[in-house]
Amino acid sequence: MFNKILIANRGEIALRVIRTCNEMGIKTVAVYSTADKESLHVRFADEAVCIGPASSTDSYLNIPNILAAAEITNCDAIHPGYGFLSENAQFSAICAENNIKFIGASADMINRMGDKATAKATMKEAGVPTIPGSQGLLSSVAEGKEIAETIGYPVIIKATAGGGGRGMRIINEPSEFQKAWDSARQESAAAFGNDGMYLEKFVVEPRHVEIQIIGDSFGKACHLSERDCSIQRRHQKLTEEVPSPALNEKIRKKMGEAAIAGAERIKYEGAGTVEFLLDKFGDFYFMEMNTRIQVEHPVTEQVTGFDLIKEQIKVAAGEKISGKNYSPMFHSIECRINAEDPANDFRPCPGKITTLHIPGGPGVRVDTHVYTGYTIPSNYDSMIAKLIVTAETREGAIKRMKRALGEFVIEGIKTTIPFHLRLMDNDVYKSGHFTTAFMDEHSYDTL
Amino acid sequence: MFNKILIANRGEIALRVIRTCNEMGIKTVAVYSTADKESLHVRFADEAVCIGPASSTDSYLNIPNILAAAEITNCDAIHPGYGFLSENAQFSAICAENNIKFIGASADMINRMGDKATAKATMKEAGVPTIPGSQGLLSSVAEGKEIAETIGYPVIIKATAGGGGRGMRIINEPSEFQKAWDSARQESAAAFGNDGMYLEKFVVEPRHVEIQIIGDSFGKACHLSERDCSIQRRHQKLTEEVPSPALNEKIRKKMGEAAIAGAERIKYEGAGTVEFLLDKFGDFYFMEMNTRIQVEHPVTEQVTGFDLIKEQIKVAAGEKISGKNYSPMFHSIECRINAEDPANDFRPCPGKITTLHIPGGPGVRVDTHVYTGYTIPSNYDSMIAKLIVTAETREGAIKRMKRALGEFVIEGIKTTIPFHLRLMDNDVYKSGHFTTAFMDEHSYDTL
Repeated sequence: MFNKILIANRGEIALRVIRTCNEMGIKTVAVYSTADKESLHVRFADEAVCIGPASSTDSYLNIPNILAAAEITNCDAIHPGYGFLSENAQFSAICAENNIKFIGASADMINRMGDKATAKATMKEAGVPTIPGSQGLLSSVAEGKEIAETIGYPVIIKATAGGGGRGMRIINEPSEFQKAWDSARQESAAAFGNDGMYLEKFVVEPRHVEIQIIGDSFGKACHLSERDCSIQRRHQKLTEEVPSPALNEKIRKKMGEAAIAGAERIKYEGAGTVEFLLDKFGDFYFMEMNTRIQVEHPVTEQVTGFDLIKEQIKVAAGEKISGKNYSPMFHSIECRINAEDPANDFRPCPGKITTLHIPGGPGVRVDTHVYTGYTIPSNYDSMIAKLIVTAETREGAIKRMKRALGEFVIEGIKTTIPFHLRLMDNDVYKSGHFTTAFMDEHSYDTL
Repeated sequence: MFNKILIANRGEIALRVIRTCNEMGIKTVAVYSTADKESLHVRFADEAVCIGPASSTDSYLNIPNILAAAEITNCDAIHPGYGFLSENAQFSAICAENNIKFIGASADMINRMGDKATAKATMKEAGVPTIPGSQGLLSSVAEGKEIAETIGYPVIIKATAGGGGRGMRIINEPSEFQKAWDSARQESAAAFGNDGMYLEKFVVEPRHVEIQIIGDSFGKACHLSERDCSIQRRHQKLTEEVPSPALNEKIRKKMGEAAIAGAERIKYEGAGTVEFLLDKFGDFYFMEMNTRIQVEHPVTEQVTGFDLIKEQIKVAAGEKISGKNYSPMFHSIECRINAEDPANDFRPCPGKITTLHIPGGPGVRVDTHVYTGYTIPSNYDSMIAKLIVTAETREGAIKRMKRALGEFVIEGIKTTIPFHLRLMDNDVYKSGHFTTAFMDEHSYDTL
């Protein structure tokens, strides 16, 4: 087992890794920018090294400084957390060259899963469902109709140069094809100077459902059930839960098996997440694979009894996994508490926390690096705490979340607590029948 | 279901009950003494009524004032918590007379279980093992030897007027009887003016192991496994855990069945605890039954997924229990954090909390009514928080507890945190082979 681990990250995830190392008897080294010297991750580590000024580029993304810190302090491993260097192939490679174990994916694995086309092709080979569609560009309406007939309507045609929803048309039946084709191509040519179109199956009422997997260095992988992360705002997850209200045992098993097949195909080592789009018919399609721990990992820990950081460290040290798959024993929900003003388009609100009171009691977990008197720097992302509740049922978890949010006192700055309170009272959210479009369809004011 | 519940208690347990009521959609009324007006239980209840001055007799034990508060606020039930009026038969009876549901045992039940001799006789009738011994006073050495022969050595003879260990002798074999008898009677006569002696089987290396039960109004009871509370100082529990390191599945099953038999015999309704002494041979004997929620109930919640306060409220409202018994899924330990100075004979240290930082992360639960700036009044018991950790194994839970204790910051007063940190490092504690004598054999300095 490792003797000393450097945590190349900040905030709650750095503290999260320190907690597990502490329980495993592994010494820890925190790194910090000058803006973070008062953070709890610095205080709770055995050693701490300043790696640069506030700017991420000069500190948390500064590979030479981080490696120097690991070498001075004699670390035998580096945990990258999420974000920053966690999916940086170069960093993973340099760690390997320097005989420091990178607790994450190899450079090759990061590259393979980081490139969307390669990732999709690899998963397809492993039998993982991917969104069917045209091979490259469509040449004609006739070809489009032929493919649509094979994969089934509705389909969507998209401008190859497109973005922001332009040059895109949903087609529900063959009779709509010609008109959609003409107008999409016109729009695309006008907007991007390129009228090339490709076709994909249109995912109806999509939900973001991801499978947590863990693989060991012996080529074996298992899954720890799913997380539903459909409540997103501009692709930023706001709240996550497990079980997904949209999954039954049959879909869970199928999705879990697909994720494991994909992971074992590439001999994936470590904790990873296979993200799927799930449609209203229970069919799902591979989106991407994240080769790191995720922000929302605690909900999985709550319903399985697992310590995911510990598992990461154990497989990085060469231990075997049990190989058993897990079904959720409870229902767990996480709300991301951000220093943002939900009433003002979620504008970031860094500043000093003058009063902090953390909720407690049964089924409440809080992961945070902040405290009364802490000043949130404006240099990094705005998440300041994760509130995780666990109960026997989804209904019980929602009620518990409302109760815990009501107890949470953060004064001095604006936070997303009022948003989450409204969300927990929203009928669509409570029904469980929501899609990734939920936050497009609802604003803070209309929740 | 009840519409509004008055919580006739203070501190963390009042807050604990409010939390569950909140999640169940039941309104709450807090009562408080003038010394407690800044307590969180007052702030988090829907309504709050001052019931008297600081002295418990005039406030939390003041039955007329509490009933008046319940009537003014239109409560249909009262939750008494633990201590104070929770096992007061008169209060239970008066609530019943006033058509306010007492969420606890009936007056008759409290009386039957409150009288030790009646409780023991009742349990014996139900087939629950009780400590065998003489029926009343011993008349002679010959009679004593005869009984000892039947129940087996070692036995203990005790002065009927005794106390504090005086007039007590352990007898390991017949040859020791005459000498022990003579000296105990002499000592007893000198100390108490009464040389009457009775005899009991001596429990070798006793542990305090209790079974959490819950019974409904249909005469059905189930158990939620045990708690080991052997670490006590002057009969005050300091830390509790489940599973008991001394129990195997066979003893757990037997002890659970005995507790259920006792509870069903008396048609026990509500949450209750049947306390046993467990000896080194795996035999156990009924000590007493507590007809209320216990301080240490969270460890049971952690390993079963149950909300015990919710179950209490549900059976009080006439709901049926499932009838299923529970085995622990995890290992959970509670440390009672008291405002006491462990280095100074655990002298109470009330005062103002200048800084409070609560531990978090995986497997950590904190139940507390205090916050930064809160002044602990000197009028009540010194417990200010319960730190509960849960992990897959006992070893994991001990490491997690050390980690969480290390994160816990309480400034301004002395607390028992340093004691618990030493306890978690003590080899005897870690081995699991400890008895109720542990704190007689260890002081804070020798831990």
